[in-house]
Amino acid sequence: MNETASFRLEDYPLRTFDTVRYGDTDRQGHVNNAAFATFCETGRVTFFFQGSQPLPPPGTSFVIARLILDFRAELAWPGTVDIGTRVTKIGRSSITMVQALFQKERCAATAESVVVLVDEATRKSTPLRPEMMAALEAAGGVRLHP
Amino acid sequence: MNETASFRLEDYPLRTFDTVRYGDTDRQGHVNNAAFATFCETGRVTFFFQGSQPLPPPGTSFVIARLILDFRAELAWPGTVDIGTRVTKIGRSSITMVQALFQKERCAATAESVVVLVDEATRKSTPLRPEMMAALEAAGGVRLHP
Amino acid sequence: MNETASFRLEDYPLRTFDTVRYGDTDRQGHVNNAAFATFCETGRVTFFFQGSQPLPPPGTSFVIARLILDFRAELAWPGTVDIGTRVTKIGRSSITMVQALFQKERCAATAESVVVLVDEATRKSTPLRPEMMAALEAAGGVRLHP
Amino acid sequence: MNETASFRLEDYPLRTFDTVRYGDTDRQGHVNNAAFATFCETGRVTFFFQGSQPLPPPGTSFVIARLILDFRAELAWPGTVDIGTRVTKIGRSSITMVQALFQKERCAATAESVVVLVDEATRKSTPLRPEMMAALEAAGGVRLHP
Repeated sequence: MNETASFRLEDYPLRTFDTVRYGDTDRQGHVNNAAFATFCETGRVTFFFQGSQPLPPPGTSFVIARLILDFRAELAWPGTVDIGTRVTKIGRSSITMVQALFQKERCAATAESVVVLVDEATRKSTPLRPEMMAALEAAGGVRLHP
Repeated sequence: MNETASFRLEDYPLRTFDTVRYGDTDRQGHVNNAAFATFCETGRVTFFFQGSQPLPPPGTSFVIARLILDFRAELAWPGTVDIGTRVTKIGRSSITMVQALFQKERCAATAESVVVLVDEATRKSTPLRPEMMAALEAAGGVRLHP
Repeated sequence: MNETASFRLEDYPLRTFDTVRYGDTDRQGHVNNAAFATFCETGRVTFFFQGSQPLPPPGTSFVIARLILDFRAELAWPGTVDIGTRVTKIGRSSITMVQALFQKERCAATAESVVVLVDEATRKSTPLRPEMMAALEAAGGVRLHP
Repeated sequence: MNETASFRLEDYPLRTFDTVRYGDTDRQGHVNNAAFATFCETGRVTFFFQGSQPLPPPGTSFVIARLILDFRAELAWPGTVDIGTRVTKIGRSSITMVQALFQKERCAATAESVVVLVDEATRKSTPLRPEMMAALEAAGGVRLHP
């Protein structure tokens, strides 16, 4: 585990949480590392689906291309996990997000993920839509292209 | 998803597999991304516990510090996932491993993970033991320190 | 699925909840049936561990012996699941509990589970302790033995 | 846990297996009870989807209505779980199946499940089709109706 750095939930514009489940623990007594990936997913999909309309337009969906997880402390059962998410980069068809997981204000992990907008029919990447930009920028995103 | 590169299972000295479960799929119809982290864990722990003695000596265990997952193709149910693992770097108390996940010889993901040997009593990192070196080097590892 | 009967969360003395995770869904689009077992476990362990002291005394733990799950409606993502639990029977070393899972007040499943108090050293059942009776009876339990 | 009875894998006409994953374990050190429900699902869906055509005809799917799980012994990591399945009753729109889970020939659980054929458009039950009967009877099923 890396050192617990001075990450704070309030520095992330998108915040949600998950309950820790008994079955999230493994024989080492702490929450299994794959559950960290699940908590990151909760942060991402809550953002994508929180509005009255899903962020990806009909016929498209976001698919994850890369996940970097830095484990900084153990997560314990029972309790909840607070999940902070910030969009950093807005590409042509992809978005980069940074995230942090907290338990009682202690940062247990940070993550970076890249998701790509995919056309569900062709299974290929498709450009982000102009109507998505306001939400992406409000979540912290900076456009890489004009 | 990134392009599917020319990764081959036989290039990884440690090989194991998992069965894909119906519940690994999500509403997008494919295997959920967190299951990829689980398959990587299978590759790592199979290596750590495959011998007559676990690789970590009594009173110690490996804890994951970093996981980088590059998603290259979807994984489908039903089927199995072949998991290739290679140790790359042998540090003072940490090991770096690269992995690849395959379904029917198609590479679905590559991963890099860093695990740290931890003293279970103090919860702090502890140096790798000399008696671990033969297994780590046989798995492809190169010592970063003399 | 059986008919949705007139089950109500307020009829269960023990109430908790779980967040539904994206990965709980499967390729049929709804929450996978094994997650229902997990939600029932959340209700049970929340009861066992909610006080200042865990309900099972040191050196013992509850182990599940039987689970009967009646699926009555689908559970959907996103959302939460409300979990109601009531102890029904208090045996010599076992407890019977009934549970119900709700999403927006609609009952998605009912369950009955039997858990046995086990001595962690011998792995054999051990009698319930007198000091557990107050909590078990407050949760609805009726003693089968004097 | 109930007594381990004399159940044998070879008494079940449908046999498959799952690999036990590290993350299937929980803080009690053994495989978490919800994973037992997953292993039972593997047995059922392997039967439904093993042929050149899925057993449920297009536009229909099986939905679980009831699951009764009797836990008889612990399941351990590492290892595999052998899953035996037998159809017992063939109703108008439902099938009853009995199952058993084994690890190294030791029965860890038995289960009974009832699944209902559902029309995916109406979400209502629909009669089993005549062309399904041969497979259901070969799997041990006895028709309750002429």
